[in-house]
Amino acid sequence: MNEYDVRVAKVEGTHVWHVHRDTDEFFLVLDGELHIALREVGGERTVRLARGMVFTVPRGVWHRPYAPVPTRILLFEPSGTLSVGDAHDDLPDHVDATTGHAL
Amino acid sequence: MNEYDVRVAKVEGTHVWHVHRDTDEFFLVLDGELHIALREVGGERTVRLARGMVFTVPRGVWHRPYAPVPTRILLFEPSGTLSVGDAHDDLPDHVDATTGHAL
Repeated sequence: MNEYDVRVAKVEGTHVWHVHRDTDEFFLVLDGELHIALREVGGERTVRLARGMVFTVPRGVWHRPYAPVPTRILLFEPSGTLSVGDAHDDLPDHVDATTGHAL
Repeated sequence: MNEYDVRVAKVEGTHVWHVHRDTDEFFLVLDGELHIALREVGGERTVRLARGMVFTVPRGVWHRPYAPVPTRILLFEPSGTLSVGDAHDDLPDHVDATTGHAL
């Protein structure tokens, strides 16, 4: 909608540390459980989101999502936003670097 | 996030016909059921959304949401978007004209 995409992603396991320099990123857990590790001033912390919970990662904050079980999440972000951000750690084979797939 | 609000609304009954001239409006049904009547070229139609279903009303399209049962919906829209649009029919007493309430 407008210049934004609403995306649904099926995730499991550990994503890669990455950062979106120019956009916040909104997460809603549809099913399952999502942990988001955040590198903040003063140290690292992890937010744990159960089904129905939401969190917005502010632009510029390095983060790494992790799903301990098969999980579906809804994301809201500007069209073209890359799933691994503008900068990221080395990409393991299982990580999908994408701006989204058509349904 | 960014210049957008994510809103959760508890709705029941008939909203008012209205239009957002400058923005699309995204709906996700969290619980319950939402019908959205749309005035389109060629006539009126109604989309019926069960739990977990999504729909985007394009900018410029007159629409009227209706919830036959108590329903929770999630909306994405630019901050400041009015719940009754830029133009609307007469407002019944039960309709909340708002740009959102803080939690």
